[in-house]
Amino acid sequence: MMTPEMIETLIQIVGNENYIVNEADLFKYGHDETETIQQTPEIVVKPKNTAEVAAIMTLCHQNCIPVTPRGAGTGLSGGAIPHKGGVVLSLEKFNKIISIDEQNLQVTTEPGVITEVLQNAVKEKGLFYPPDPSSKGSCFIGGNIAENSGGPKAVKYGVVKDYVLNLEVVLPDGTIIETGANVLKNSTGYNLTQLMVGSEGTLGIVTKIVLKLIPLPKYDVLMLAAFNNLQKAGEAVSAIFRAGFVPSGLELVEIDALKIVNTMINSHAIPVNDAIAAHLLIELDGNHKDILMQEMEAIALLLENFEVGDLFFAEDEAQKNELWKLRRRVAEAVKLDGYTIEEDSVVPRAFLPDLILGVKQLAQQYGFKAVCYGHAGDGNLHIRIKDPNTTTSFNQPHIQKALADLFILVKKLGGTISGEHGIGLIQKKYMPLVMQEANLQIMRSIKKVFDPNNILNPGKIFDMH
Amino acid sequence: MMTPEMIETLIQIVGNENYIVNEADLFKYGHDETETIQQTPEIVVKPKNTAEVAAIMTLCHQNCIPVTPRGAGTGLSGGAIPHKGGVVLSLEKFNKIISIDEQNLQVTTEPGVITEVLQNAVKEKGLFYPPDPSSKGSCFIGGNIAENSGGPKAVKYGVVKDYVLNLEVVLPDGTIIETGANVLKNSTGYNLTQLMVGSEGTLGIVTKIVLKLIPLPKYDVLMLAAFNNLQKAGEAVSAIFRAGFVPSGLELVEIDALKIVNTMINSHAIPVNDAIAAHLLIELDGNHKDILMQEMEAIALLLENFEVGDLFFAEDEAQKNELWKLRRRVAEAVKLDGYTIEEDSVVPRAFLPDLILGVKQLAQQYGFKAVCYGHAGDGNLHIRIKDPNTTTSFNQPHIQKALADLFILVKKLGGTISGEHGIGLIQKKYMPLVMQEANLQIMRSIKKVFDPNNILNPGKIFDMH
Repeated sequence: MMTPEMIETLIQIVGNENYIVNEADLFKYGHDETETIQQTPEIVVKPKNTAEVAAIMTLCHQNCIPVTPRGAGTGLSGGAIPHKGGVVLSLEKFNKIISIDEQNLQVTTEPGVITEVLQNAVKEKGLFYPPDPSSKGSCFIGGNIAENSGGPKAVKYGVVKDYVLNLEVVLPDGTIIETGANVLKNSTGYNLTQLMVGSEGTLGIVTKIVLKLIPLPKYDVLMLAAFNNLQKAGEAVSAIFRAGFVPSGLELVEIDALKIVNTMINSHAIPVNDAIAAHLLIELDGNHKDILMQEMEAIALLLENFEVGDLFFAEDEAQKNELWKLRRRVAEAVKLDGYTIEEDSVVPRAFLPDLILGVKQLAQQYGFKAVCYGHAGDGNLHIRIKDPNTTTSFNQPHIQKALADLFILVKKLGGTISGEHGIGLIQKKYMPLVMQEANLQIMRSIKKVFDPNNILNPGKIFDMH
Repeated sequence: MMTPEMIETLIQIVGNENYIVNEADLFKYGHDETETIQQTPEIVVKPKNTAEVAAIMTLCHQNCIPVTPRGAGTGLSGGAIPHKGGVVLSLEKFNKIISIDEQNLQVTTEPGVITEVLQNAVKEKGLFYPPDPSSKGSCFIGGNIAENSGGPKAVKYGVVKDYVLNLEVVLPDGTIIETGANVLKNSTGYNLTQLMVGSEGTLGIVTKIVLKLIPLPKYDVLMLAAFNNLQKAGEAVSAIFRAGFVPSGLELVEIDALKIVNTMINSHAIPVNDAIAAHLLIELDGNHKDILMQEMEAIALLLENFEVGDLFFAEDEAQKNELWKLRRRVAEAVKLDGYTIEEDSVVPRAFLPDLILGVKQLAQQYGFKAVCYGHAGDGNLHIRIKDPNTTTSFNQPHIQKALADLFILVKKLGGTISGEHGIGLIQKKYMPLVMQEANLQIMRSIKKVFDPNNILNPGKIFDMH
């Protein structure tokens, strides 16, 4: 519990307009998009600059007060939930793009900028920042860094970690550091930048970000392919890469998920019939439209080896947007339909059919429904489950057991628990299934190096014991 | 000093054929390609498998014996030099490519495989491992991981860190861990894989490596462009990217360096005249030859804005190989000509002209000759210097002062000391010029997490004080 004096000092640091202490407003800062968890903080502070963040951290470090940094609260693993109470430090006032450097193809930004806003700003200069999580219209770039987010473009362009050149970070004791330099290559000491990316706000608070940009490709083409067999769809994914193509998007949506999203947004863009098991959404991008068309035709031909059904080429931007909208809103739709927590398993791409088969067998064995969708080109499958017999299925022991079985399979296939959502609160109990105690012990010791008092986002990824 | 008993135990671990203790043979393990440093170890051991590495480390950890891991000894920062004596642990027996997974586009390899051997092996399967340091014909892939190596292809394809998916590592106390999973995306705890890459053999010994591969591009085209003005050549580099082109190689060689290498290998492939100041070597690759030709013509046109002189298109593989050979052998040639330690500064690409100008001013100010060459597309410039008044120029106080001035400039430009060679022994004294004490303190604390007895490659990157 914080003393009234500490609360008062925090308010002095951020100023009168920039804090919340009333219960009703605090509530929203007690959860993110992860289902079933709520922990209301004692205070929310909204610092406006790095000096204020440093002052807050110095105070909390000295008084051992838990601080949970928060972006837009769109996370799916509980990373922004103030599990131990105390302070939520919202980065929402850090909402400025500081500069777009067209000469060096870099952008310097504050962490509270919405990902899509940043993407659009650099696009206006003919530049491209590819990582595009489904929540890109609302999530913050700082949250993307915390979770090492991906999205559909990752299959060709990589994830957030591949674009972060340098970070300004406030450490848990209030020290401000720069993690690297604004350069494309760096062999100057340990890679603190990459240690920070994906550390889920447990090692420091990112207050400034330098990202690499690339030239914006001029064209893209999009094709939807229906499959009567989910396994064959999975096999086709690997075959596309083995044939030398590198799609800029290669998504899978199982038919059950598509039906639900179709209903939710009342779309008929993708025809549904009882024979279809799944669709692949395949995008190519580049600077030469005729080449893209030729390559897509070659892919269409290749898919015939995998019992592909109807193929649908998007003719214009409107059709492309409609298809992508359906894909992007799948998670929301199946969640509304009662499917619980989105799993984020990732395996080597060619083992996707084994993973899908495993999911279906577990569903049968444990008596629940499972839908699969996600970034098939990366081997990153999102899985949601629904137990028809209960509305709180995630907490049921048999579901927990099934998830453990799933992760054991994922590990056996060379994969791991999370491709892009992070571990946060909800997956940490499964960590020993995919890594040795020695790895966890190293992570705990690194955490202690940065945060000896264990105040920054405590209880995430692993317990400190 | 090691006791005879410890030496005997080490010999028992690796077996009779796999150690060196005689002074003459030990000598070669006391240096790498970094000039002017020699420190002969007490024993060299050549373990054949991970269990032997673990046994060696357990013994040395318990007895506080320094261990320096060694690849092919081609490093340029002193990383493989057994600075504190003790044991050199050579990975030369770890020379097998374990498997090439054509379905998942991955290769699993031991660390003692020569980089070019690995590249050729995957090329036979139509696959591509891009990072290609100039020493690719002799360096080991494990050493490349230790230094986070680059090479000419980095400008389009990234450096070693962008290809490492998972590592088997023996920690300093003998514990064996896997750092990650064999997947393209991973948000499952701190990124221990990226912490290991570029850590210069100070945190653990890599014994198995899983690398991402990509489809091999079918064609490449190569153009050499002469410039009468070094600054303009530097400006042209940035302009190429701003126009939307992403070359697969964009190298700069200053005329003084070219003259020296021309003489050494008696080549006339690149005409030299007194008006020329520097050349750019520009490569494009992809799957459509006609597109590559179009793009190269567009680049040629663009270069006219930068006072380009003669342009030379390589007509066939022989011409391409000759040009690349000249580029690859520059370092060796200028070294033989008396130019000392290769600096590895890196700045944001568009600031390359400022860096070159700074180098020339420092040369004038401090009275030495400087030649520049390197990976201009990445802003990564190699600089060698020669003081006509001394043969041991590197150790002269005025040269040390000049280098400090250089790094202060590099930092001011947003850059850092090393783009691809690492810090090792020779650059560590300059680290405080480009990073805060807080960063160094974090690095020391991370080192302690992995290596509490400070036995693994001690004295590299930073001092522990």
